[in-house]
Amino acid sequence: MKKNVLIIGAGGVAQVVAHKCAQNNDILGDLHIASRTRSKCDAILESVHEKGAMKVEGTFEAHQLDAMDTAATADLIRKTGAQIVINVGSAFVNKYVLDACIETGAAYIDTAIHEEPDKICETPPWYANYEWKKRDLCAEKGITAILGAGFDPGVVNAYARFAVDMMDEVKSIDIVDINAGSHGKYFATNFDPEINFREFTGTVYYWEDRQWKEKAMFETGKTWDLPVVGPSKAYMSGHDEVHSLAANYPQADVRFWMGFGDHYINVFTVLKNIGLLSEHPVKTAEGQEVIPLKVVKACLPDPASLAPNYTGKTCIGDLVKGTKDGEEFEVFVYNVADHKDAYNEVGSQGISYTAGVPPVAAAILIAEGDWDAKEMKNVEELDPKPFFTVLDRIGLPTRLQIGGLGGEDKAWTEA
Amino acid sequence: MKKNVLIIGAGGVAQVVAHKCAQNNDILGDLHIASRTRSKCDAILESVHEKGAMKVEGTFEAHQLDAMDTAATADLIRKTGAQIVINVGSAFVNKYVLDACIETGAAYIDTAIHEEPDKICETPPWYANYEWKKRDLCAEKGITAILGAGFDPGVVNAYARFAVDMMDEVKSIDIVDINAGSHGKYFATNFDPEINFREFTGTVYYWEDRQWKEKAMFETGKTWDLPVVGPSKAYMSGHDEVHSLAANYPQADVRFWMGFGDHYINVFTVLKNIGLLSEHPVKTAEGQEVIPLKVVKACLPDPASLAPNYTGKTCIGDLVKGTKDGEEFEVFVYNVADHKDAYNEVGSQGISYTAGVPPVAAAILIAEGDWDAKEMKNVEELDPKPFFTVLDRIGLPTRLQIGGLGGEDKAWTEA
Repeated sequence: MKKNVLIIGAGGVAQVVAHKCAQNNDILGDLHIASRTRSKCDAILESVHEKGAMKVEGTFEAHQLDAMDTAATADLIRKTGAQIVINVGSAFVNKYVLDACIETGAAYIDTAIHEEPDKICETPPWYANYEWKKRDLCAEKGITAILGAGFDPGVVNAYARFAVDMMDEVKSIDIVDINAGSHGKYFATNFDPEINFREFTGTVYYWEDRQWKEKAMFETGKTWDLPVVGPSKAYMSGHDEVHSLAANYPQADVRFWMGFGDHYINVFTVLKNIGLLSEHPVKTAEGQEVIPLKVVKACLPDPASLAPNYTGKTCIGDLVKGTKDGEEFEVFVYNVADHKDAYNEVGSQGISYTAGVPPVAAAILIAEGDWDAKEMKNVEELDPKPFFTVLDRIGLPTRLQIGGLGGEDKAWTEA
Repeated sequence: MKKNVLIIGAGGVAQVVAHKCAQNNDILGDLHIASRTRSKCDAILESVHEKGAMKVEGTFEAHQLDAMDTAATADLIRKTGAQIVINVGSAFVNKYVLDACIETGAAYIDTAIHEEPDKICETPPWYANYEWKKRDLCAEKGITAILGAGFDPGVVNAYARFAVDMMDEVKSIDIVDINAGSHGKYFATNFDPEINFREFTGTVYYWEDRQWKEKAMFETGKTWDLPVVGPSKAYMSGHDEVHSLAANYPQADVRFWMGFGDHYINVFTVLKNIGLLSEHPVKTAEGQEVIPLKVVKACLPDPASLAPNYTGKTCIGDLVKGTKDGEEFEVFVYNVADHKDAYNEVGSQGISYTAGVPPVAAAILIAEGDWDAKEMKNVEELDPKPFFTVLDRIGLPTRLQIGGLGGEDKAWTEA
């Protein structure tokens, strides 16, 4: 049984994590939040208190932290007595925070792979570049480290596991992520623009016929007729979960599909072709060295600012195909979330909500012992049922369509 | 009779000016070129010598100069003995260079209005904001200052004057600028992107019914069926020459139309709506203050680099309507230039060529006395015939279509 949580990061996802931790502080114990900019932590705490989110009386403190400084992070873990760290800071800090957890014995949870600022789209499987190098060390020291425990990666990995467990044999896993919401701005990204664009500037790696294959972004598009949000165009994209699912289910084809409207693609294409999405510095006529992508980020709306006017729904799920009892079998495991509901509950938009609720569910499962694995795990390596049970309770219910898209629709508990 | 020329600037237009001055150094005397970056001047001199452009043996020297430093510019004018300054530096330096000419008695020629970096699209008439404030002083001190003596503004002002001189009464002047060439890049501007975009981010001022009217950019488009280049879509745009022609011919409607393809408009719209064309600094997440427009400029191809692969033609002209001998009368006065021909002759693309040849023609006319006005003039206030004669000789012949677009086509000398 572990308790006391340190949240790292103070962006849109951290806001959700903070609210959800507060709503479950009877299980999670003392709460702490730390980021480079202390005032952003204070603003999150203020919002937590405004909504009266703390379930029971307890501690929730803000701290200033450079999370790339492993020693400082380890000090803060010791000082706060945190036994669980939920890292929802920039993907650039992940390996440093993981090291601090290994050093102090705290459980580690993140929601995305580690990234180095100057590298885009490294060789597959991505987890092997940083995280899995620490797998033996975690096992040896009994460190619980749950990688990629947001929605995608995260919940969709559990969806895959749940579907695979229903089958004799799995043949393909297609993860589809559609945001059918509207933020009313000319253009905005739903999370950190720097990370958002980086996802789509590199090679699209996917797993087919037991090998890595490559495509260019927006090369392969397909319309998926999804529950609630209806027919939606999505493009095969590179994504973290493909890289762990392919390792755990090498017999299955694994692909990720992200929904994009024509307007997003047009803006992205213009910015990319001009070179404005580059992470390599350019020099202005005046001699100033600038990374174009950081300027684009500075010009775009802060993703958190989209929340008050965001309307519509998201649908994210896994279409998993295989065989069961010798027959072809297909199931779509999914969740539908609503932007407005998310804002009303925790002051965030739906994309932050879907990303921020699952790591809190993971923290609850570590606190309660179900997922305190004492080693490094991707989400599909853990039992999905307690995860779904907590997610049902804290805001992201899991549903199924048996027989594939458009099939018999039911809650996962009825399957 | 004035001689010895100092060229200020070392961009694409300066390259053309340097070549054309060299080709006419028997008239112009000693030549000098100065810019913030000395090496860019050296490269231009190298190209002049490579092409064997100097008509007679003579001086052509490069200098380093901060042209915003009036005292330094005045010193260089005195040191070089230049009696004519052709200012084709950034539009931000104009007023400082003009002051240096007033101080030293040198004749001043530029090709665009002065601009302040932090102001876009000031109140009309634009020339009244800076240049015309020095009109009395120039007259008092006998300074020849020819404003806006590029192609547009410049040659098109002379076209208007020539057409007006053919008529009893002028009713409208529509200037149309079509670049039907192709540079083969995803996106590029034909001259300094900073100045290019600034032209289209402000209000479109035009003169109709004896008053200033306003439109938004790309609000009003029209297809013009022009000689050689054929039907071309152009949009009413703000442009310098509208502001002096409206003052000199207040009885005429004066409008400027710039040709744009859908691709240019799309890229421009994306960049503008995101805020990347702003001249106001933004702060990155890392705290760096950056002007987005300068980063876009740094990402785009250097306009000079387009020259080697540029193909196709430009057509720029004035459709002028009025009455003659009591009848409706219409004439289109125009030039067609060829990108490849420009490159072969002076190593530049056609847009730089059309902008760079006219100020050299003006310098020749000052050197020969025809245009040594001893006061400040916009081009339509000077006799257009000697200007056309020099332009015919040095590469930009003037043609007419009598009766308007598609009318009887002839050289201006045959009219």
